[in-house]
Amino acid sequence: MTKLTAYGRLAARFRRIATIGECASMLGWDAAAVMPPGGGAARGDQLAALAVLHHEHLLAPEAAADLAAAEPSDEWEAANLRLMRHAYARAKALPADVVEAQAKANSNCEQVWRIARKQADYKQVQPHFSEVLNLTREAAAALSAELGLSPYDALMDGYQRGIGTDDVAALFAAYEDFLATALPQVEEYQARQPAPMRPAGPFPIPVQQNLCRDIAQRLGLDFAHARLDESAHPFSGGTQTDVRITTRYLEEDFTSAILAVVHETGHALYEQGLPSAYARLPVGEAAGMAVHESQSLIVEMQAFRSDAFLGWLGSRLHTTFGGEPELYCTENMGPLWRHVERNFIRVDADELTYPAHVILRFRLERAMIDGTLSAADLPGAWNDGFQALLGITPPDDAKGCLQDIHWYDGTFGYFPSYTLGAMAAAQLMQAARAQIPDLDTAFGRGDLSPLLAWLRVHVHGVGSRLDLNAILEQATRHKLDLRAFQEHLRERYLNMAGRAEARGPL
Amino acid sequence: MTKLTAYGRLAARFRRIATIGECASMLGWDAAAVMPPGGGAARGDQLAALAVLHHEHLLAPEAAADLAAAEPSDEWEAANLRLMRHAYARAKALPADVVEAQAKANSNCEQVWRIARKQADYKQVQPHFSEVLNLTREAAAALSAELGLSPYDALMDGYQRGIGTDDVAALFAAYEDFLATALPQVEEYQARQPAPMRPAGPFPIPVQQNLCRDIAQRLGLDFAHARLDESAHPFSGGTQTDVRITTRYLEEDFTSAILAVVHETGHALYEQGLPSAYARLPVGEAAGMAVHESQSLIVEMQAFRSDAFLGWLGSRLHTTFGGEPELYCTENMGPLWRHVERNFIRVDADELTYPAHVILRFRLERAMIDGTLSAADLPGAWNDGFQALLGITPPDDAKGCLQDIHWYDGTFGYFPSYTLGAMAAAQLMQAARAQIPDLDTAFGRGDLSPLLAWLRVHVHGVGSRLDLNAILEQATRHKLDLRAFQEHLRERYLNMAGRAEARGPL
Repeated sequence: MTKLTAYGRLAARFRRIATIGECASMLGWDAAAVMPPGGGAARGDQLAALAVLHHEHLLAPEAAADLAAAEPSDEWEAANLRLMRHAYARAKALPADVVEAQAKANSNCEQVWRIARKQADYKQVQPHFSEVLNLTREAAAALSAELGLSPYDALMDGYQRGIGTDDVAALFAAYEDFLATALPQVEEYQARQPAPMRPAGPFPIPVQQNLCRDIAQRLGLDFAHARLDESAHPFSGGTQTDVRITTRYLEEDFTSAILAVVHETGHALYEQGLPSAYARLPVGEAAGMAVHESQSLIVEMQAFRSDAFLGWLGSRLHTTFGGEPELYCTENMGPLWRHVERNFIRVDADELTYPAHVILRFRLERAMIDGTLSAADLPGAWNDGFQALLGITPPDDAKGCLQDIHWYDGTFGYFPSYTLGAMAAAQLMQAARAQIPDLDTAFGRGDLSPLLAWLRVHVHGVGSRLDLNAILEQATRHKLDLRAFQEHLRERYLNMAGRAEARGPL
Repeated sequence: MTKLTAYGRLAARFRRIATIGECASMLGWDAAAVMPPGGGAARGDQLAALAVLHHEHLLAPEAAADLAAAEPSDEWEAANLRLMRHAYARAKALPADVVEAQAKANSNCEQVWRIARKQADYKQVQPHFSEVLNLTREAAAALSAELGLSPYDALMDGYQRGIGTDDVAALFAAYEDFLATALPQVEEYQARQPAPMRPAGPFPIPVQQNLCRDIAQRLGLDFAHARLDESAHPFSGGTQTDVRITTRYLEEDFTSAILAVVHETGHALYEQGLPSAYARLPVGEAAGMAVHESQSLIVEMQAFRSDAFLGWLGSRLHTTFGGEPELYCTENMGPLWRHVERNFIRVDADELTYPAHVILRFRLERAMIDGTLSAADLPGAWNDGFQALLGITPPDDAKGCLQDIHWYDGTFGYFPSYTLGAMAAAQLMQAARAQIPDLDTAFGRGDLSPLLAWLRVHVHGVGSRLDLNAILEQATRHKLDLRAFQEHLRERYLNMAGRAEARGPL
């Protein structure tokens, strides 16, 4: 047996760490999708034990020595080593007592938040949230010192490397300007159109389940390595060779079940397409949450909600559920599934106003981390900010600052990923359209494969060898910018007359 | 924070080890019940990683020091410490290279066995099995030296502490004598009776699923802490607060689905009734596989297949599936679900002949471990032994020595547990009947709760504080013996005339 080099030992160590992470990922899926309620306490202990093991393996003294000594032999190994050092630095920066205090405070606050949201009673959760916020600030300061980033950037870096607050702030400011003009125009146009008709159910859930499975498969999901289940909040989890996606079904409307499956399938295709030669190594992982979101959104928003794809879906729906063909033609499905409306709830928001929800959260969480906004002042700041961005004020905190789990479970710096992902998706789609002939013809057959093949090369197969901006540069010749997303929104929501010609018969 | 004693540190260490084991148990359930086929390779790695972590924590140098120094403060702690030392001694005895070689050889052999069994071709698996056997002998020798037990006893000790080969051999020899007389008598009696009628399906699987769930719940299974799913081979797994049981459904016959659920519910009730104050500690675990099997069999064989319980079940079945009431009356259900027949396959065997299948395996595996039977000679020895015990010879090795996974995946010393469990179940039931008035009246209402309450006190709540014989002594005033089991079999299968009077109307 040849003696391992420092790099080889590190690779073995990180594969083991990743394998522990896979166990946690599977148990997380189980908890959300199938676990009986009484299993929760033991599951918490199991996940905590795995997190400790993860941490211990990463911070073992031998790891530090090998990280100092290791020599990469190619570009992939070089990227891998950079990512290993980065993971080590992040873990090492955090004092063990802060990590432990965070785990307790976050879990405690999250539980109180569930009740507070139900009762629209922010005061109830405020003291717990204050503690979460203080500990998050403490952790951010420690990370900041180690990484040489601002405290908020250090948090954002945990979800998406390679893009900083200043870039995000500039992109978001530009979007706010765009929205101020575009939103009233879209609303005015929509108001002049006949209201789209919503197919009336019931749509039996077993039929929806089969349909959702067929659609995911048609999009390219390999069910030899995946499952589709049900959970209260749709998500994608599991591992590269065993992806678990979920959705939820309503008997009276198939829309949410299908769109969630399509969205999660985008995430799952990314996982299945990661470079398997680097499986379980940092360089073989997804390149961050914004890139992940770009892959769900390019499938859901860019491809699936296009006229061409909805044309295919419409006939599929009509075959499945019967009823009036007019309900399922693109002229109805398009306006129905791309309706724009100012809404208090982020997860219900349309493509155009969604970024406003994110922009608000980005600004508030930065201020909370910088210490310029306190937990006590959050509801007021939220409502003012929402009014300024979308011109409406939430009637209560359940429809305002209590709606998302993120802050209450200690997640800060994640929100920008949603909108950076939407922008990246548009940018990637624009490049793909320029490079792949007849993409809409394929979409019209319900065929995602030409786009998927392109994403396999330009995004999935890259793993984490490149970061967000570098991926975009090699695929689209530009770093992340707003242009393609704006053009996409103008084309889809403000150029309705021109698009009518592209409509085909059912 | 008070400083932990050596005992306290050990308790923390073993809780952590048990929590890692819970992760493995859940992932094992997932693999058998829901995992897509392509997830198998990664799952193997995940389970192997958890096994290594388990082993490392158990054998850490600090564990040895604490085991030497620890002082228990009561009877439970004393038992706990004994079990910890025992677990440590077993783990320490096995050289790491043997453990690793076993993991590979067992997994390899098991895979070849699957094909060999399908093709009834023992020669194919023989070289792989030879390797498994050699490594098992090596491991048994190492355990034998450390524990001061014979090599075969050292293996059996891994599944059921506190009973040795000599006791088992004596019990089995006595059973063989009993069977030689009883089996022809039962067959003769059965031959004079009209053949029982089998209800004709189809019995829709969703209806069977609901029924099985209802039955498990009725038996006392708490579904806030349990799931019932489907798998190729029914089993019980998961953890104390999140038990996972499985069954399999045939549309044409509900028998196997129901009986598997009842059997696995017996196992699950035991897990749910273990002393929660000692959760995740060795003393809080089940007291071995024979005791575990006694708990599934007391529920399935002793209680559920009794005339009284079948009377309740019959009306339940008639309500559920309709049809002729005569099909579901005890006079038909009893003979149908307690039919005795010489059969080549252990898992299909009836209560009376099942021990013969186990006795054969016990003798053969002892001889293989002692070195007096080689892998090459196994098929011949199997067929001779089967002929001697049950008077029939398997037509091929698929119906002979290839039928069970056990030896081919390296499991030796487990088989006796099945029949020791059956004997213990009869012994416990006899004691329970003597102590609980009107047990059959409760069974006739489909009510297991008086028996369950008794088992909670005398078996479940004891955990591993006592071993098999000590549990039986405190519950029945006798160590394990054959008497109660023989009386049960005589009563059920050889006293048919007397029993007719106990039959009630449907």
